[in-house]
Amino acid sequence: MKSFPDRETLQAAFDRVRAYAHETPVLTSETFDRITGGKLYFKCENFQKGGAFKFRGAVNSVLSLTDEESARGVATHSSGNHAQAVALAARMKNIPATIVMPENAPQVKVNAVKGYGARVIFCPPTLKDREETLEKVISETGAEFIHPSNDLRVIAGQGTATMELLHTRTGADEEPGRKIDLVLSPVGGGGLLSGTALAARYFGSGIRVIGCEPARADDAYRSFYGGTLVLPDHPDTIADGLKTSLGSNTFPIIRENVDAIVLVEEDEIAEAMRLVWERMKIVIEPSAAVPVAAVLNGKVDVKGRKVVIIISGGNVDLGKLPW
Amino acid sequence: MKSFPDRETLQAAFDRVRAYAHETPVLTSETFDRITGGKLYFKCENFQKGGAFKFRGAVNSVLSLTDEESARGVATHSSGNHAQAVALAARMKNIPATIVMPENAPQVKVNAVKGYGARVIFCPPTLKDREETLEKVISETGAEFIHPSNDLRVIAGQGTATMELLHTRTGADEEPGRKIDLVLSPVGGGGLLSGTALAARYFGSGIRVIGCEPARADDAYRSFYGGTLVLPDHPDTIADGLKTSLGSNTFPIIRENVDAIVLVEEDEIAEAMRLVWERMKIVIEPSAAVPVAAVLNGKVDVKGRKVVIIISGGNVDLGKLPW
Repeated sequence: MKSFPDRETLQAAFDRVRAYAHETPVLTSETFDRITGGKLYFKCENFQKGGAFKFRGAVNSVLSLTDEESARGVATHSSGNHAQAVALAARMKNIPATIVMPENAPQVKVNAVKGYGARVIFCPPTLKDREETLEKVISETGAEFIHPSNDLRVIAGQGTATMELLHTRTGADEEPGRKIDLVLSPVGGGGLLSGTALAARYFGSGIRVIGCEPARADDAYRSFYGGTLVLPDHPDTIADGLKTSLGSNTFPIIRENVDAIVLVEEDEIAEAMRLVWERMKIVIEPSAAVPVAAVLNGKVDVKGRKVVIIISGGNVDLGKLPW
Repeated sequence: MKSFPDRETLQAAFDRVRAYAHETPVLTSETFDRITGGKLYFKCENFQKGGAFKFRGAVNSVLSLTDEESARGVATHSSGNHAQAVALAARMKNIPATIVMPENAPQVKVNAVKGYGARVIFCPPTLKDREETLEKVISETGAEFIHPSNDLRVIAGQGTATMELLHTRTGADEEPGRKIDLVLSPVGGGGLLSGTALAARYFGSGIRVIGCEPARADDAYRSFYGGTLVLPDHPDTIADGLKTSLGSNTFPIIRENVDAIVLVEEDEIAEAMRLVWERMKIVIEPSAAVPVAAVLNGKVDVKGRKVVIIISGGNVDLGKLPW
């Protein structure tokens, strides 16, 4: 039987991560409170290093390595935020990083990863090719694989966003950690949702945790309610960070610790994203807009409740906006 | 001889405004510091109520009225941020507001003003028509005119952004107010630049103040260096908030208290705006990007200096971005 991250593991992750990650702000919005009837707290991981929560899991993983493991370096496959996060975390500890990226990855992302000093190896753009190429890198270098979501060190790291929130005062005399009713997080591979749910359970009191997923990439929803891990079936969503599937660790953690998963439509995601940009003046990516869309469209009832929304990131191609 | 706002007038404005306005955050960016070689502090008025610094001047004006004046209400002409700011400030004090808007004003702005409960009167889209229509409103209602930039109460109100900054700690052990070398502000009608310059002079120590203007709306530049107030000559810039001209109050205040005015090109404004969105994850409007463009393109030497950039606002038509 697997042992999932316990309270002490999350506390250790928090102590490690806080020295390297930004303590991200918690924003509020009269507009969104008025529209939804709830009291919303936006935990803004778009202001995190690398522009997304992914840095937390990456830096916790890198800091968990032994000296011997550090010398051999780290490796992962990703075309997105996790690639940058691992490259950045590795640079901070001055250890080698190899990132396997699909050959059609956006140049801006390739440049960002290279800019952090990581070695980039290209492969054809299929999951099979990625995994095979990564296997080769690992067998050649002995590098430690840091999976974007299923790695237990990553899961513990992602949980630190919620732990930080539970320590953060958000208003004159409010400590949301003592009183929040609900935490909403997007779900793709499930690393953020798993870490969030564990953190809420260990360090909160009676907090419900809900995962929010695009209807056009609803594998976590089907897995959660069907009771069997299913893979995405041609996911096709503007929330490109959420096309991945749950894994052997994230699925059982989510089944045991998450209260519900809700689905939102593509136009709801785009509208929510635009409304946050317009009213809150912050740049969030489509994946981050998924839980916002859930509260705006009544998929989660937030009336009269104190609700935390984890804004997962702000890495957007400004030349290709969904409106 | 006119008496311009003195130290006590600004202090009184600060005491009035702080009860109603947001204390806006001061953000920093490793990316921008690395690019420019300076230490930059972004005073984020895009997070101000109404999405722009304009609320400060409007609320100071409204709060300066006698009971008798308040009963007659306020009026102004504006198609932009000032219209919303006056409407919002008036609503907070529960006094009537009439806003003269050009009949081609964007529907979203008209709706925002009406949403704050103001009366909107449309007129043909020329300055002459605006002024004549406003005259009529004033003669009929006895409302107090609040000019968007030349009103002394507005100028004092805009100065509170810099005063707030001089009170704000921005980092572990830094008080920028004690040490900042330079404050950069966009200049259009000159209300923000005037208030900024007076605040820096009264409450700072040896701070230089520089106005930043689009080259395609360079009337403040020509007025400042030519010594005579000149009007805009077919201004044509994406920084639409900066098409207006200096006035009888803002021109002399700026001549006496501002150290330089620099010009930036349209592509520099668009690139600066995009870089702020991409790296800092905040939404700023083209006018706010003008001083950012100035530091990115060497129009102002910031190397080794502590520099405050006033991010004037974040009201952007997300359907019409300049890239």
